[in-house]
Amino acid sequence: MTDTNEMIGAVPGGVPLGVDVVAAAIDACLSCVQSCTTCANADLAEDDVVEMRTCSAQCLNCADVCDATARLLSRPAYSDLAVIHPLLQACVRICTSSAEECARHAPHHVHCAICEMVCRGCVEACAALLGAEAFAALQ
Amino acid sequence: MTDTNEMIGAVPGGVPLGVDVVAAAIDACLSCVQSCTTCANADLAEDDVVEMRTCSAQCLNCADVCDATARLLSRPAYSDLAVIHPLLQACVRICTSSAEECARHAPHHVHCAICEMVCRGCVEACAALLGAEAFAALQ
Amino acid sequence: MTDTNEMIGAVPGGVPLGVDVVAAAIDACLSCVQSCTTCANADLAEDDVVEMRTCSAQCLNCADVCDATARLLSRPAYSDLAVIHPLLQACVRICTSSAEECARHAPHHVHCAICEMVCRGCVEACAALLGAEAFAALQ
Amino acid sequence: MTDTNEMIGAVPGGVPLGVDVVAAAIDACLSCVQSCTTCANADLAEDDVVEMRTCSAQCLNCADVCDATARLLSRPAYSDLAVIHPLLQACVRICTSSAEECARHAPHHVHCAICEMVCRGCVEACAALLGAEAFAALQ
Repeated sequence: MTDTNEMIGAVPGGVPLGVDVVAAAIDACLSCVQSCTTCANADLAEDDVVEMRTCSAQCLNCADVCDATARLLSRPAYSDLAVIHPLLQACVRICTSSAEECARHAPHHVHCAICEMVCRGCVEACAALLGAEAFAALQ
Repeated sequence: MTDTNEMIGAVPGGVPLGVDVVAAAIDACLSCVQSCTTCANADLAEDDVVEMRTCSAQCLNCADVCDATARLLSRPAYSDLAVIHPLLQACVRICTSSAEECARHAPHHVHCAICEMVCRGCVEACAALLGAEAFAALQ
Repeated sequence: MTDTNEMIGAVPGGVPLGVDVVAAAIDACLSCVQSCTTCANADLAEDDVVEMRTCSAQCLNCADVCDATARLLSRPAYSDLAVIHPLLQACVRICTSSAEECARHAPHHVHCAICEMVCRGCVEACAALLGAEAFAALQ
Repeated sequence: MTDTNEMIGAVPGGVPLGVDVVAAAIDACLSCVQSCTTCANADLAEDDVVEMRTCSAQCLNCADVCDATARLLSRPAYSDLAVIHPLLQACVRICTSSAEECARHAPHHVHCAICEMVCRGCVEACAALLGAEAFAALQ
């Protein structure tokens, strides 16, 4: 994923929200797709699956929202900040919830400990992007 | 897709936003995934591709947001209205843009004429869902 | 989804595998995305979640493969039969497995009964497409 | 994405195809989702869009197949090699085609040069996985 900056930087017309902050959010979202998809699967296979249902369900939602967010951010040309903005809000919210639920299980499940960390990284990257100047004009 | 009502109606715990309005939004989103994916592909193959780039790019974003929205709405158990709400807002916005761009090309491209109609149906279904009482408590 | 035939029929260059059989497979795949996504979620919320883990996991894989299949079939222009063929094989296999697993739980879970039927419909539609003459030349 | 090995290694029941080779394929697929999504978008915005249509269309198919492949590989529990095998074949084929088409444009478009390299990396990682011993029993 070290190529994300170069890829989006090569799109004609530029990246209104800023290359570095967008590339960081894309990479964080794709990491979250990975960790949340695996965490949801691992939850099912645990002996205490009964306690892991919320975690599994939230991680699936998190993976799907992060996937869509990564895709839209990966298309700087013909993009619409008024779509990106609420999508990032949805992303921050579900990543926060997944991180909090994973945190409850982190002491006894390694996949939750890692997934919590990855989700928090995604919250940070998307929140940083929501703070981009280009969004200020939307309000 | 006639089974969507029955499917989500069978999920333990019920559907806080209402079975019928959620099922309608899911079906509208999945129709939009189909029409927008095809419209974006057809745009590329048209003689006037130079005029169709915005349409192609917007339809791709529309398909991805509608896909994520359909998936989250299809999971009533352990769902979070505070994620669904901004996701529906993103969905209404991108579907509106796609419908408007398709409308410009509808007179000369049948796929745009159909896609415009499908996108407008999705705007309507998602807007109806945003009006659900359960969301009022979020504000 | 009644517009799928018209949409793909409007793509310049035509549909090498045949409009009707491709449209039927797209619609069947998208129905499967819906039912499998909901079934996997409902499984988590059931009292007998311990017995439903295989069903939940398989339905998630089924939804993702059907989603990709629906998307590739929705792009007749610049398409490659040598990609579509193994993708349809993967789709038939996972839909068959999901149908069989759902069948085991159909007597006591309505969502599994419906999902089994939808998965079987998708197997049929994709198998019909795999029988298309255009694929014969690939072998 | 440095956490993929640890994530899948933490799933109860182990990873039949091998942790390292699966993690490498997941990471390669997600990189491909990123580069192909951006390349398809950049193609639309180029002055020579007429020459870039095949590239744009193939990259979209590549992103969708890689996305599904990454998701299924990220779920080692309750997984089915007979689904994974044709999916990897589809993935190798579309990544090879995208790499070849990008190669034609690499001299004048940086995004194609990077995307070619990422697609070739994905071909290699998926081909390595197809060579895993666990698949031998399938034949």
